[in-house]
Amino acid sequence: MRARKKKWAPEVLENNPRILRDITAYEGRSINEIFDNSNPVHVEIGCGKGRFITETSRQNPDINYVAIEREAVILAAAARRAEEVSAGSLIFVLEDVDNLLNYFNTGDISRLYINFCDPWPGKKKWAKRRLTHDNYLAKYEQIQIPEIFFKTDNRILFEASLESFSRMKWELQNVSLDLHNSITIDNIMTEYEEKFSPHGPIYRLEALLPKPQSTH
Amino acid sequence: MRARKKKWAPEVLENNPRILRDITAYEGRSINEIFDNSNPVHVEIGCGKGRFITETSRQNPDINYVAIEREAVILAAAARRAEEVSAGSLIFVLEDVDNLLNYFNTGDISRLYINFCDPWPGKKKWAKRRLTHDNYLAKYEQIQIPEIFFKTDNRILFEASLESFSRMKWELQNVSLDLHNSITIDNIMTEYEEKFSPHGPIYRLEALLPKPQSTH
Repeated sequence: MRARKKKWAPEVLENNPRILRDITAYEGRSINEIFDNSNPVHVEIGCGKGRFITETSRQNPDINYVAIEREAVILAAAARRAEEVSAGSLIFVLEDVDNLLNYFNTGDISRLYINFCDPWPGKKKWAKRRLTHDNYLAKYEQIQIPEIFFKTDNRILFEASLESFSRMKWELQNVSLDLHNSITIDNIMTEYEEKFSPHGPIYRLEALLPKPQSTH
Repeated sequence: MRARKKKWAPEVLENNPRILRDITAYEGRSINEIFDNSNPVHVEIGCGKGRFITETSRQNPDINYVAIEREAVILAAAARRAEEVSAGSLIFVLEDVDNLLNYFNTGDISRLYINFCDPWPGKKKWAKRRLTHDNYLAKYEQIQIPEIFFKTDNRILFEASLESFSRMKWELQNVSLDLHNSITIDNIMTEYEEKFSPHGPIYRLEALLPKPQSTH
C-alpha cells in the first residue's frame, strides 16, 4: 500500500508511545521484554491502517500484539488510531518482514496473522515475494510459529498458498472459501476487506506448524 | 443420483460388453487381468451417466479405465453411451465403493477420480459418508493410490476435503477455486458439472499419496 505524505505523520512517528523505534535493541532478547509480561505474542505482518489488529487487541486483553508495517505513513495512521480508541496491548514496528525475522527468537511468536498481503500477480518469478511462499513458510517454521491465520480476496494467491502450506507440511484447518458467508468463524474485518469484499469471496485458512517427524 | 426405471436397462445390464458382472472373480488377482495389458488403471467412483470417463478414455487410449456406480439404471446408461461413442479402454462396475476396495490390490490403481460426489449436508455425523472423509482417505492410502483428482461445486464439501487431505498428509497440487475460469487446467465436464456450473464456481484439487516417513 503506497500512501501520500501527511503533515501529522512525522510527529506521530516520533512520539506515539505505541511505536517501537529501536527493534534492534531486542535482538537476542525475548520479545516479551517489550511488554513486561509473559502473555502470548501474536504478530500481524502488513497491518495497514491497523483496523484489524486494533480491534483484535481490544477484544483480547491477555494477548500481546505486534503489528508490522513497512510504510511509515500507514504505520503512523495505525498507531494514531490505536491510541485514539484505546487499543489493548499493542505495539507497532516500522520494518520489512525480511528484516524482522532477525529480531524474533524461536518461540517468541504464538500466532502470525497475514491479511490481504500483496498477491504479486504478473511475473511468475515474483511468486517468491508472496508472504505465503515456501521460502517464507520455512522462515516461520524456523522460529517455530505454531499457527498462521491467513486471509485474502485473491483467488490465485489463495490457491498457491493452499499448495505451498501443503507442500511445506503445514496442516490446514478452518478453511473458508467464502468467509463472509461462513457461520462458524468469527471475523474482524480489515479496511481493505470491507472495501473489496462486495466484489467476491474472502478466502481464509489456518495453518498449523509441521510436527517434527518421529524418528523411532 | 436416483434414477427412474428404464425399459432398456435390464438388457444393457445383461449384455453390454463394457459391464463387468463378476468383480468377485478378480479378488486376489490384479485388476489388469481384465484388460489383458499392463497399462495404468484409472478409476472413477460415482461415474454417473459416464460423460466424463467416456470422453477421458477416448482421449487417453493408453490408460485403462474402471468406472464405478452403485445405481444400476445410471450404470446402464453410462455403458450404453460408452458403446455408442466408441469409448477407449473402459469398463463399468455396478458396486458400492465400500465393497469395491475389497477387489483392488495395493498398486492396482494409478489414479482415482472423484467427481461431484454426494456432499452429505445436514447432520454432522453424515460427514463420514463423504468420499473424501479421513476414513476413506485411509482406505485409498492402504491400497497406495498415488493420486486423487477431485472436483465439486459444493463449497462446504470442498473446505472439509482440503482439511481432511491435509490432516491425512496428502499433498495438494493444482488447486483451483474456479475451475472454469482457470487457464492452466484442462477440464472434461461431467453432466452434473455442465448443468450446475452456471450457479457458482467449480472447485478442484489433486492430492498426492503421503510419502512414507523417513526413519533414519
